[in-house]
Amino acid sequence: MSNNTQVSVLGLGEMGRALAAALLAAGQPTTVWNRTAAKGDELVARGASRADSVEAAVTAGPVVIVCLLDHGSVLETLEPVAGQLAGRTVVNLTTGTPAQAEELSAWVTGHGADFLAGGIMAIPTTVATPDAFFLYSGQQRVFDAHRDVLEVLGEARYLGADTGLASLYDLALLSGMNLMFEGFHHAVAMATSRTEGTAADFTGLLVRWLVNMARVLPAFAAEVDAERESGAEPRLVQTLDLQIAAMANIVDASRAAGVDPAHLELSLAGLRDLLGQGHVVAGAPTAVRRLRLAGPMAGSHVARTGSPSGTHGNGGGGRG
Amino acid sequence: MSNNTQVSVLGLGEMGRALAAALLAAGQPTTVWNRTAAKGDELVARGASRADSVEAAVTAGPVVIVCLLDHGSVLETLEPVAGQLAGRTVVNLTTGTPAQAEELSAWVTGHGADFLAGGIMAIPTTVATPDAFFLYSGQQRVFDAHRDVLEVLGEARYLGADTGLASLYDLALLSGMNLMFEGFHHAVAMATSRTEGTAADFTGLLVRWLVNMARVLPAFAAEVDAERESGAEPRLVQTLDLQIAAMANIVDASRAAGVDPAHLELSLAGLRDLLGQGHVVAGAPTAVRRLRLAGPMAGSHVARTGSPSGTHGNGGGGRG
Repeated sequence: MSNNTQVSVLGLGEMGRALAAALLAAGQPTTVWNRTAAKGDELVARGASRADSVEAAVTAGPVVIVCLLDHGSVLETLEPVAGQLAGRTVVNLTTGTPAQAEELSAWVTGHGADFLAGGIMAIPTTVATPDAFFLYSGQQRVFDAHRDVLEVLGEARYLGADTGLASLYDLALLSGMNLMFEGFHHAVAMATSRTEGTAADFTGLLVRWLVNMARVLPAFAAEVDAERESGAEPRLVQTLDLQIAAMANIVDASRAAGVDPAHLELSLAGLRDLLGQGHVVAGAPTAVRRLRLAGPMAGSHVARTGSPSGTHGNGGGGRG
Repeated sequence: MSNNTQVSVLGLGEMGRALAAALLAAGQPTTVWNRTAAKGDELVARGASRADSVEAAVTAGPVVIVCLLDHGSVLETLEPVAGQLAGRTVVNLTTGTPAQAEELSAWVTGHGADFLAGGIMAIPTTVATPDAFFLYSGQQRVFDAHRDVLEVLGEARYLGADTGLASLYDLALLSGMNLMFEGFHHAVAMATSRTEGTAADFTGLLVRWLVNMARVLPAFAAEVDAERESGAEPRLVQTLDLQIAAMANIVDASRAAGVDPAHLELSLAGLRDLLGQGHVVAGAPTAVRRLRLAGPMAGSHVARTGSPSGTHGNGGGGRG
């Protein structure tokens, strides 16, 4: 639901243009700025006000949405107008790390403005469609005050007061997408290795298979939570011997097909690592725990609750 | 659609039991055998005939479905009854490599039987539901003769006469699933690194994001085909500089969250490798081609058509 708040959009790359276009389409008064002004021409034709400087953009209204190349560009763009930020709200939708979001939040709020960190889970063509969702973190008061405008861009999910959360979830979701895409590349390379069959035909099967298997993930996630919260033994497990044999089969077939199995060999090494630690079976909780290098959550609930860290970390041998 | 053909199922692990149960539920006359006979008790209670030996199972009817632990188990189980195979059809649904499927096909047909290689794209609970599909390769005549029975188990897709194809596609699909699961493990480890937020909440977002992004894959696949067939330049590309910066961000944030970034570092190394080869932009066709180590399809259409292999393999610098 749009309202009469004047919204400025800084950065008119493909995504910034999609955001501004969505605001305009919803009837939101919108000011646009980009280093290369011509990128805003089409938006101006659709009713946007063009700001000739960052200062003009920032002072045009109370809400500034930032969608630039990277964290460095955001700092570089906002620093000269630090004195004009007080009393406004900066919503940063530029991709960055949690640490960068925290740095920016401290800087913006230090200049008397409100700050909201955001992550865009959409591609430009899905902005403002039901496929888009946006993650926000920071003060709930700030989110609530501007939720109407943010919902124009796509479903707005408030994650919490921890400023870095939206970035953390954003990058975590992108890591999941990246590995799904690596799997697509590998699977297509294998499937097209010995026939004139097309990548398109195979990918029809792959998408169906991946979507089916993605539906299994919530059950795995529930077991990750249950183990963290109460040490519950996971039930969706397989013996490591079987998992290793299955993965070794895929590695062999990849190599026979002339396809680099590096990612799968890394998975295989991870399974062998668990076997070497004395595990006999493994499911999602074990796999997730193995990835924790250090930090407060290492070793999952075991380390947090102070129970003997060997019990679950290395002693899964008796499970299943 | 079931018919009156007597079908024998060898191997009553979780998947074999699901297959036999689906046949029984469809009214198909079904004989079951397992090394540990008790695994068939429930099926016998539902109307299955129990075979007390492999020989009794194989000679019970014209169609033998094999779903055992691995290729070695299949050979070991069938070798003693080689003399009873003539005139029957062996459908192998045991997971294995294309080379193993070819070896088994030669052995089975060498004993006067027909052979069909299959791959099960289902989990036991989805057998005989719309979520299941089965891949088959081998002689079309054999597939057509038994299609009615096979469709009872789930949608039956015939891939072609190349016996190894069903295994190749099966393992390719499993490699895609494996990397999607690795992405899930990594993403959950990151997302749960700094909050009391649950894996379940995060995974709700992840599944939505992965399903949305899986819908993009057919467009990527079309570009892989277009490049192979005619050398068409892909349009769904991004500059490698941006891709590398984005991936480095995720690696940094993973490490900061105490999560092992090994899979993502491998992806990053792949992108840097392409940059080192002189590419400026990359999309799916470049990524797939990079994975081809050797063999007839290495270098894609370039190597196949004999045009200068440097043009597309390394000379992408002018693209985009």
